Amino acid sequence: MTEIIPHWLTKQADLAPEQTAIELTNGTTYTFLELKEKSQSFARKLQTLGVRKSAKIGILSTNHIDMVIAIHALSYLGAVGVMLNVRLTEKELNYQLNDAGVELVLTQDNEKMLDSKIASFSDVWNLHGTQSELSSEIHLNEIFTIIYTSGTTGFPKGVMHTYGNHWWSAVGSMLNLGLSKHDKWLAALPMFHVSGLSILLRSVIYGIPVFMLEKYDKHQFHEALMKKGVTIASVVTMMLRDLISQLGDDRYPETLRCLLLGGGPAPESLLEKAKDYQIPVFQSYGMTETSSQIVTLSPGKALEKIGSSGKPLFPAQLKINAPKAQIGEIYVKGPMVTKGYFNNADETRKSLEDGWLATGDLGYTDAEGFLYIVDRRKDLIISGGENIYPSEIEKTLSAMEGIRDIGVIGKANGTWGQIPVAFVAVEHSTVLTADNILTFAEKHLAKYKVPKEIYFLNQLPRNASNKLVRHQLKDHLTDNDFQSH
Amino acid sequence: MTEIIPHWLTKQADLAPEQTAIELTNGTTYTFLELKEKSQSFARKLQTLGVRKSAKIGILSTNHIDMVIAIHALSYLGAVGVMLNVRLTEKELNYQLNDAGVELVLTQDNEKMLDSKIASFSDVWNLHGTQSELSSEIHLNEIFTIIYTSGTTGFPKGVMHTYGNHWWSAVGSMLNLGLSKHDKWLAALPMFHVSGLSILLRSVIYGIPVFMLEKYDKHQFHEALMKKGVTIASVVTMMLRDLISQLGDDRYPETLRCLLLGGGPAPESLLEKAKDYQIPVFQSYGMTETSSQIVTLSPGKALEKIGSSGKPLFPAQLKINAPKAQIGEIYVKGPMVTKGYFNNADETRKSLEDGWLATGDLGYTDAEGFLYIVDRRKDLIISGGENIYPSEIEKTLSAMEGIRDIGVIGKANGTWGQIPVAFVAVEHSTVLTADNILTFAEKHLAKYKVPKEIYFLNQLPRNASNKLVRHQLKDHLTDNDFQSH
Repeated sequence: MTEIIPHWLTKQADLAPEQTAIELTNGTTYTFLELKEKSQSFARKLQTLGVRKSAKIGILSTNHIDMVIAIHALSYLGAVGVMLNVRLTEKELNYQLNDAGVELVLTQDNEKMLDSKIASFSDVWNLHGTQSELSSEIHLNEIFTIIYTSGTTGFPKGVMHTYGNHWWSAVGSMLNLGLSKHDKWLAALPMFHVSGLSILLRSVIYGIPVFMLEKYDKHQFHEALMKKGVTIASVVTMMLRDLISQLGDDRYPETLRCLLLGGGPAPESLLEKAKDYQIPVFQSYGMTETSSQIVTLSPGKALEKIGSSGKPLFPAQLKINAPKAQIGEIYVKGPMVTKGYFNNADETRKSLEDGWLATGDLGYTDAEGFLYIVDRRKDLIISGGENIYPSEIEKTLSAMEGIRDIGVIGKANGTWGQIPVAFVAVEHSTVLTADNILTFAEKHLAKYKVPKEIYFLNQLPRNASNKLVRHQLKDHLTDNDFQSH
Repeated sequence: MTEIIPHWLTKQADLAPEQTAIELTNGTTYTFLELKEKSQSFARKLQTLGVRKSAKIGILSTNHIDMVIAIHALSYLGAVGVMLNVRLTEKELNYQLNDAGVELVLTQDNEKMLDSKIASFSDVWNLHGTQSELSSEIHLNEIFTIIYTSGTTGFPKGVMHTYGNHWWSAVGSMLNLGLSKHDKWLAALPMFHVSGLSILLRSVIYGIPVFMLEKYDKHQFHEALMKKGVTIASVVTMMLRDLISQLGDDRYPETLRCLLLGGGPAPESLLEKAKDYQIPVFQSYGMTETSSQIVTLSPGKALEKIGSSGKPLFPAQLKINAPKAQIGEIYVKGPMVTKGYFNNADETRKSLEDGWLATGDLGYTDAEGFLYIVDRRKDLIISGGENIYPSEIEKTLSAMEGIRDIGVIGKANGTWGQIPVAFVAVEHSTVLTADNILTFAEKHLAKYKVPKEIYFLNQLPRNASNKLVRHQLKDHLTDNDFQSH
């Protein structure tokens, strides 16, 4: 039997109508009551457009108050939000739109050429709304959002999140971090990623404000921590580095009680610097499939367990399919873990068994049960907080005339954490330059996925069963920042 | 699909092994790790006694570390704890034991003559344990506890609580009160009531200590608030009055952030006094069926909304079956609400429809949605924090030879809040004294249920359909503390 709760925004607007829900960098604020009224109004306008229960509605936007309103509006209709990465090409977007059966895409502008019907937020605001009933309750087992991740096969998979997944993620985090009515969460991570979206939903569930940046800006982020009463912020390694570089002799206010660090393991030297600056870093581990963090290290243990991601949150479990203290694949389980991939029973079956999610990541736990990630997902490249799946790039580029074989790996990079680099074997009697390949790549891939270096090899390392042996590619890396051989 | 979480005590022992779980008045403390180990050990000994999954096991004890251990031990076996009120007579206990099919009663001593097998806690400790597997997970939809309440029919009904009911109750409270790792909850309410039991379970879920009194003692309670770092305490009106009477020129430390007041509406004068003493009182409304508080008033609103119980907790809903602002029956809904009465489909059907619990209480909400209870359950008598159901007393006493008709109501009392008083119409040609009736009552009822005053009437007020018109009985009340007419 599914659990039913009152609609969370309606409820928070009733409990704390005057409390700030959203605070923007220009000083504009929205209370929970205002946010509810705007979201309900937007929902009624969407009804005029024909949006109904279970309809798949794309949302293509950087962080913006209209995006927040649109997300909540969908929940008032029981519609499903397909959260689209604004950095994707039209071709990549269309793959997701078609796969999810998206009826309508809501955007900041409608300049994109997409396979689905498009409406800008202002198009919707200009409509008349219906007078129909809106949802007053939330059924926790219903699907609220779908967010695509590319799997190792390179085909993007739509991770389904129920309302319950988001709820339990928020509750699990609260049990770890505690909750004060003075909390304010800083969000610069995009809300089309689960890392940003989860901040928005925690705000509604906890009754605390989100200080929202339209996009990450290191000065604005630093200012917000310094002067805006922020108590918790979600960051990736690059952002932590940016913060430290701006601190100088200053310190953040003591009211800043948590910097939740996700998006890949952080270098020890950086964590030690953060400690010197008395920044309360909580390292964490999570993925789209776990509705954000599922394993978190508290600052009390940060230096004692340096490099660890911590322990699974209260409602979550962890196991490693290897003998104790040895490296194996990481499995996680808990009510914040996705029930599967949209319309993709095969991938769901491969990843989920008996509630346990095979993360594809390798790691081990120490004697006290603290998790250490060895490979943040085998081969996954994380560049400036974006996940890049080598196989997706390989698949795209291998379609290019003249490319015989290709392998992509991540290369350490001071600015981005990692950058994707490609190793190419060219067909005999073909001439291909790095520029040719980059031109092709730029046409078919989001900019952040375009390999930043191209290496030419006669032959890619493959094992007996013809699988690429990626780690051997690393031997060919040079240290240049951009280089074509 | 039911949600599965790791066993909550095992989990807390992993996350916070050194954190204090239980603190006793004699200074003894138990960490979560110790509590887990003792509970698992006790569970294995219970296995030796044949306790298996789904077995109904009575727990008959005042607050005691062994009671805490026994409760957790049952959860490691998937057994169901039937929480027995130590103040009940053997006859009353046996009704519950038989109704619930209790296999074994765990007690502090085994002096009672009961229909079920009995083992004292020390009997169990003296056994050898098995080596069998214990539960490592909790399925939230499984039944954990049964607590009997007498309904208006007078037949006690076994309220079933799933693990999920307790979980959601704890989470709902946390979303209202916030959570700090410095919290410590004072428990003097008995753990055989849901008000006390819920404190124990919040402690495990939140990872905070319970300061546990074996039973309520006004001096110990006051001392605990003064000197033991308690931040939250659960109280009933009588206890709040006791506290204020002991304060004199003192004030409780500022770290005391919440006195959660339940067990019936508090007089306005008392709430105003509490305000003068800067005691942060949170009035609340709840019952066994809602796994403790479901409606709570925050101190910010305490005097503005004097007499109100507040608003439903975040995961809960409330409706009144009457036009807006008018008095009607109170209905509540939420994942902390019982799924029904054990082995009693009739009463379950009468009380629960579509997730909504008919509380039997009358009340109204003001324009802002704050709840006011008009009758704390129609006719329910609350005496020293104990619920007394007039119909139960009436049913018992009407079995006495010579009693023609009887009605019981509560009378206001300075010490107990209310006391039960009885109105009796005697059969013609029969001589019955108040003493006769009291002797009979003392044999069949727990002491606190024995009417403290007996009034003799020629005729009880009954309406056309022969229903007792209780409010007319009030006209016959005198102010004497104990009196027989």
